[in-house]
Amino acid sequence: MLLTYSLSDRNGLPIYEYLYRCIRTDILSGRLSPGERMPSKRLLAAHLEISIATVETAYGQLIAEGYLNSVEKRGYFVADGVVANGAAHTLPARPIQPEKKPSPKPSFCLLDLTSNEIASDRFPFSVWSRLMRNVISELQTRLLERIPGMGVYELRRAIASHLYELRGMVVDPEQILIGAGTEYLYQLLIQLFGRKSVYAMENPGYRKPQQIYESHHICYRPIQMDEQGISMHMLSKSDANIVHISPAHHYPTGTVMSIARRQELLFWAAMQPNRYILEDEYDSEFRFSGKPIPPLFSLDTKDRVVYMNTFSKCISPSIRISYLILPYPLLARFKETLSFYSCTVPSFEQYTLARFIEGGYLLKHINRMKTQYRLVRDELIARMEQSPFASRIHIREKDAGLHFLMQIDTDLSDEEVRRIAKERGVRLQPLSDFLFVPESGFSHTFVINYSSLSREDIKNFKAKDS
Amino acid sequence: MLLTYSLSDRNGLPIYEYLYRCIRTDILSGRLSPGERMPSKRLLAAHLEISIATVETAYGQLIAEGYLNSVEKRGYFVADGVVANGAAHTLPARPIQPEKKPSPKPSFCLLDLTSNEIASDRFPFSVWSRLMRNVISELQTRLLERIPGMGVYELRRAIASHLYELRGMVVDPEQILIGAGTEYLYQLLIQLFGRKSVYAMENPGYRKPQQIYESHHICYRPIQMDEQGISMHMLSKSDANIVHISPAHHYPTGTVMSIARRQELLFWAAMQPNRYILEDEYDSEFRFSGKPIPPLFSLDTKDRVVYMNTFSKCISPSIRISYLILPYPLLARFKETLSFYSCTVPSFEQYTLARFIEGGYLLKHINRMKTQYRLVRDELIARMEQSPFASRIHIREKDAGLHFLMQIDTDLSDEEVRRIAKERGVRLQPLSDFLFVPESGFSHTFVINYSSLSREDIKNFKAKDS
Repeated sequence: MLLTYSLSDRNGLPIYEYLYRCIRTDILSGRLSPGERMPSKRLLAAHLEISIATVETAYGQLIAEGYLNSVEKRGYFVADGVVANGAAHTLPARPIQPEKKPSPKPSFCLLDLTSNEIASDRFPFSVWSRLMRNVISELQTRLLERIPGMGVYELRRAIASHLYELRGMVVDPEQILIGAGTEYLYQLLIQLFGRKSVYAMENPGYRKPQQIYESHHICYRPIQMDEQGISMHMLSKSDANIVHISPAHHYPTGTVMSIARRQELLFWAAMQPNRYILEDEYDSEFRFSGKPIPPLFSLDTKDRVVYMNTFSKCISPSIRISYLILPYPLLARFKETLSFYSCTVPSFEQYTLARFIEGGYLLKHINRMKTQYRLVRDELIARMEQSPFASRIHIREKDAGLHFLMQIDTDLSDEEVRRIAKERGVRLQPLSDFLFVPESGFSHTFVINYSSLSREDIKNFKAKDS
Repeated sequence: MLLTYSLSDRNGLPIYEYLYRCIRTDILSGRLSPGERMPSKRLLAAHLEISIATVETAYGQLIAEGYLNSVEKRGYFVADGVVANGAAHTLPARPIQPEKKPSPKPSFCLLDLTSNEIASDRFPFSVWSRLMRNVISELQTRLLERIPGMGVYELRRAIASHLYELRGMVVDPEQILIGAGTEYLYQLLIQLFGRKSVYAMENPGYRKPQQIYESHHICYRPIQMDEQGISMHMLSKSDANIVHISPAHHYPTGTVMSIARRQELLFWAAMQPNRYILEDEYDSEFRFSGKPIPPLFSLDTKDRVVYMNTFSKCISPSIRISYLILPYPLLARFKETLSFYSCTVPSFEQYTLARFIEGGYLLKHINRMKTQYRLVRDELIARMEQSPFASRIHIREKDAGLHFLMQIDTDLSDEEVRRIAKERGVRLQPLSDFLFVPESGFSHTFVINYSSLSREDIKNFKAKDS
């Protein structure tokens, strides 16, 4: 059978491409059957009045995709096993892609006290963008080089210095592992600690790690908290071997773990070879009175504490840089079992952040933000004290971080308070929302997040119907 | 007991900080015992001749850290439960941190044919850096905003257009998920497909996914390959429900999966509700003859193919951007179960890449690199044909990607060939290195990677002792 195709109406395609598609369609539609011999290149070229090279290119593509076989000295055959399905695999029409943008956040209330986003307009973007420009012009194609698995050395060194300046922590840059956000680092730790590990988590607590443990089918145990931190009594009764805690400033209760509890925890960890403490900080920079609490990592003499922190809270969630500090034995285990992973953070962000830290801009920014946040907090508390409910409100844990607690003397349920507040234009989240398992003693308390607010937001707020 | 400290030798510390440390050391060393009453602020201030506010700050910090308790109307007491361990928690001396740099790669040979790194000096960095600068000045603080979980819309739209132009793929930007490298995306897919899924992998094959499955304790089955691709016979006999393949250009055999095999695979997947195909491309842009093979994703009418690709090979491994395309039912599952994850790629890289694609620079770069790589390949093959072993060398699978196969007529083992080559200054890797389980028929064949070489590297190479 000699193939005849009209080559004049090719819709702009090159001849070889058009010929390739015609033959492919004939095979898929069953017009050409498996095993059928194809015309020789010379013959088809003459028949269609095109060059032999063009036929060769089309045949070559069909052979590469398995539609045709070439048999030496015999010619070209339709391949066996291609199922004619009637589907014409021509280039499908391009669907119209409307310029979709993510819909703007619903601003269903006038004063949102539930968002722990940070206001990005306070970040010194002009400094940051100058550093980005410097990195581009100075490092040039070095930015394209493969990144060491644990991160760019310059950034790891800068973080070590920063932690020394800010927290008095003595850290070897080699112990620092850079990753694309704490969520990614949790997933690395799941692999490092092994699937049999059982995680103790503070109840109430931040929900993201719980979601990640569940998604990886990792066991975790919610453990009660008391006023000193996670309950040692409950922890000891559990089968957990990893404790995941935020001792510097627990979210959402704001509890600062006491030194006695820290010592007990370190003692607990040292009792069994597979016990570790994951010390998860996120806003420890923002302590308003006194200096930041020294981390468990610095008290640990038995290599049982993994320290973790992020730049999402003090810079911006969009740069996606967090880090782990591994004690040496775990570092060795990481290098042995997980060093095949590539670093997940682009080198460009790593170099820029290293300069931001080494230039002293991060420390300056943190200090400025501390002042800012304190002013916002004071404005918010002042506003609360002027409200008709002032006498029934108690403010707790207001000395650190980007949230505090508001306790209300009321017989209403948390849900009723939330609904009434919403009707008046205030979004509130009760502490009981953060319980993994129900527990008494947490009702009538609300977690007041103010990091996304400005003083103007608070000043300009007018409750509805008031 | 009235505390006496010499405040004159404070080593530059503020008084409150020094006082705080002195008391802390006394508690930890046992000089102050649990339950012991502390002097009042007024008394201690008078005794040390400092202000009451200074004592208050030091006491406040000690209370926050749990060293002291404040009892209303009674005063301050050393907290119960603090264990005196003799350790003086003074600020440790800062260890000297030498400016360590990663040691330069050992260049143990003159011609490395095992590296699949790409040469970054061919990337149009001047264009890229201009786009980076534009993104900085135009988007400004928009770069600090939280990124949508699946990625910045502009980039997802650009990728959809790119795939349409280059591959004729019709993709809705909403189906595209941006992630920090394919390794990260594999880990997301493990969660999406569920831990009970069993993965079929091409044997021989690329080792990274295997390492990741093992690290997550996920079951996988190495499946034999024939000249058309993964063996359907062996696949059907296995208990695998996910097939992880590179049909466009298998690494390291170079096999292009035939259309018949593609159809069989799609048919296999449609037989059971939990069967899926993970189509993993990585260098499909670099096809030297004919056009790139249409992906399985485009042939799939049953929503069983997840498509995956990366910009590591065509731009640089240091930008860490890969993507998944999810069929709608899996997209719905992702949104339901995994949308709590934040996007792992900084917004800055996403916007820059979007502009690089939409400006046509990526396509231009790919075409330039295709020419480049072809020239390098030709140079390398010409060089081989001049070697004393030319008559015993057969080159295979040279039409695509960044590697080809070299088969040698020899009685020597692969290890002996590798050793002899190394002595002459050539680094070679046998195909058998890529076998998960031993299989015959792969010996005397070497995987020749040339993406990191220039024509000069090849021209200037002189074998030792030759």
